Amino acid sequence: MENLYQDNEELIKKFGAQPLDKLSDKPDFITFKNGIIASHRDFDKFFSALKKHEKCAILSGLNASGSLHLGHKAVFDTNLFFQKKYKIPVYIPISDDESYVAGKVKDQKQALENSKKLAKELIAYGFDPKNTFFIIDQIYTNIYNLAIKLSKKINYSEIKATYGYKPEENIGLHFYPAVQSAHILFPQERYKIPNVLVPIGPDEDAHIRISRDIASRAGYKKPAILHAKFLPGMDGKKMSTSKPNSAIFLNDDEKTIRKKISKAFSGGQKTIEEHKKFGGNPEVDVSCIYLKSLFLDEKKYNQIEAKYKKGELLSKDLKQMFANEAVKFIKQFQNNLKKVSDKTVDKCVLKND
Amino acid sequence: MENLYQDNEELIKKFGAQPLDKLSDKPDFITFKNGIIASHRDFDKFFSALKKHEKCAILSGLNASGSLHLGHKAVFDTNLFFQKKYKIPVYIPISDDESYVAGKVKDQKQALENSKKLAKELIAYGFDPKNTFFIIDQIYTNIYNLAIKLSKKINYSEIKATYGYKPEENIGLHFYPAVQSAHILFPQERYKIPNVLVPIGPDEDAHIRISRDIASRAGYKKPAILHAKFLPGMDGKKMSTSKPNSAIFLNDDEKTIRKKISKAFSGGQKTIEEHKKFGGNPEVDVSCIYLKSLFLDEKKYNQIEAKYKKGELLSKDLKQMFANEAVKFIKQFQNNLKKVSDKTVDKCVLKND
Repeated sequence: MENLYQDNEELIKKFGAQPLDKLSDKPDFITFKNGIIASHRDFDKFFSALKKHEKCAILSGLNASGSLHLGHKAVFDTNLFFQKKYKIPVYIPISDDESYVAGKVKDQKQALENSKKLAKELIAYGFDPKNTFFIIDQIYTNIYNLAIKLSKKINYSEIKATYGYKPEENIGLHFYPAVQSAHILFPQERYKIPNVLVPIGPDEDAHIRISRDIASRAGYKKPAILHAKFLPGMDGKKMSTSKPNSAIFLNDDEKTIRKKISKAFSGGQKTIEEHKKFGGNPEVDVSCIYLKSLFLDEKKYNQIEAKYKKGELLSKDLKQMFANEAVKFIKQFQNNLKKVSDKTVDKCVLKND
Repeated sequence: MENLYQDNEELIKKFGAQPLDKLSDKPDFITFKNGIIASHRDFDKFFSALKKHEKCAILSGLNASGSLHLGHKAVFDTNLFFQKKYKIPVYIPISDDESYVAGKVKDQKQALENSKKLAKELIAYGFDPKNTFFIIDQIYTNIYNLAIKLSKKINYSEIKATYGYKPEENIGLHFYPAVQSAHILFPQERYKIPNVLVPIGPDEDAHIRISRDIASRAGYKKPAILHAKFLPGMDGKKMSTSKPNSAIFLNDDEKTIRKKISKAFSGGQKTIEEHKKFGGNPEVDVSCIYLKSLFLDEKKYNQIEAKYKKGELLSKDLKQMFANEAVKFIKQFQNNLKKVSDKTVDKCVLKND
């Protein structure tokens, strides 16, 4: 079976990321306890500054081509925890230009519309409209002044080595790392916020490493990083845009959610008899992984896991628990979404000044 | 002696530019008669559209690192001729981002200051503030939306082949061709002006060819091009920023102008006696070239040239004529410059909307 956490493991073994469990001082929040955040760079420094009430911000980007799904939840909840507890701003770049140059959307218009849709969804998700700022590149085109500034600090060879772009790929794609670096250094450049935390998936680390290098070269402080783990798709394998049924989207209806989860990969035995005798394997059971990573606190999850291992709970019981949690959460989100006005969202979108 | 016009000749011989002298229908203006404009691409189509009162514009860029000098005069005067006679808008991109990523200025701030200074000088030069529009990339950052759109139509290999950038050069430089193409296609994209004329030096043709290719790929009409010849420096060789004394700058004072011109490369003989006997060579005489290209009409110049060839006029006579013309022209410019207000210029600088 594929190791979904290979990227995370390599970041620690080969690329100098620090394992989270060695962190002596952790925030009191579920994602720092249940293993969904695997490692970090300089998070200790960020957290120390945060507790000393120094100026801090979260920077958490999204691609304009996608739709929100449960795979986003751990990072969003982590961001929300910091925003609520420490009242710090959250900057959310939505890379509509990357979506376009990488061919993930039909045209720039579609990228812009998707960006606005995502911004609205994030406010519905719970981000504080008074302290959340969307950087949509087509709207806040001033971001390019910073991108141009930083572009002078990276050469083509470095981009090629890090992003793997080929010479036959367009120059927009080759320039995008400068825009991404501009996003990451924006709170520092524009608002003089020196402590910035960037929570990412393990696949983004190479890009953010480049941004950290550029930060040094251009006289900025390096942003801190958290590396979340990817959640598996419903089939127990890597989620992918080519397998829409493998993700639970925040715009799925209840029937769809329950149907997708009913087919989730299970760690149970082949028959109920065997299951009751040998118990289930929570390590590979998709419902267990989601319940542990996103929905239940440690104590409650441990009780369920123990029962599952002993065969007292069946896979279908876990699927039902997972489906109930997912439906409850997503219905709440969808209700919120109806109440968010375009005007509220628009106020959170940075404008050229 | 180096052939200053080799680039122009190669454009015609190897790269499909059309010689200007084969054009049957030429505008009634000095630069189309005295040889300073050597060739074109699609100028016949542009001129035909212009005379039919179709929507037309001039697009004529400047780098933010330089200062205006007499080498700019032929192109500026050509632009002014069209603006005055046909009341068409002139768009002037000032590539402050290129100046920065190419290392021609210290930082973006300096590039911006130089851009504003150049814009003011161009209004003093005579461009109509009601019909002239400066695109300064740091101010009109919305230009990047078009640059991103076009960047998808050019790949890295093409840029490498055309611009000769090396992998160790920064990605801002590699992206700049998309910005340059955005400048050139801007009047078409933003104001639906299909007929755009771009007067350039011969060294820029390869870049504009790429922009013309991109225009086709992205569904725009190809802009027309005029290729001016480079004027020699005072030493008779190519002008260069490393030889500031070789150019007559529009901010030079009278003494400096006369001093520079007194040292101009001459086509005269070694002694006055020999000169009166054999006559001078106007082909290499810098004063002749400037008088012919920039200051005198055909008839008047031909009379002077004839006398010079016969030895009736000495090189110092020509230098004096050239110096008088240059001083008169530049003093007028400097007087105008004092009268141009920052407010007038600011109205001509495109803003994000």
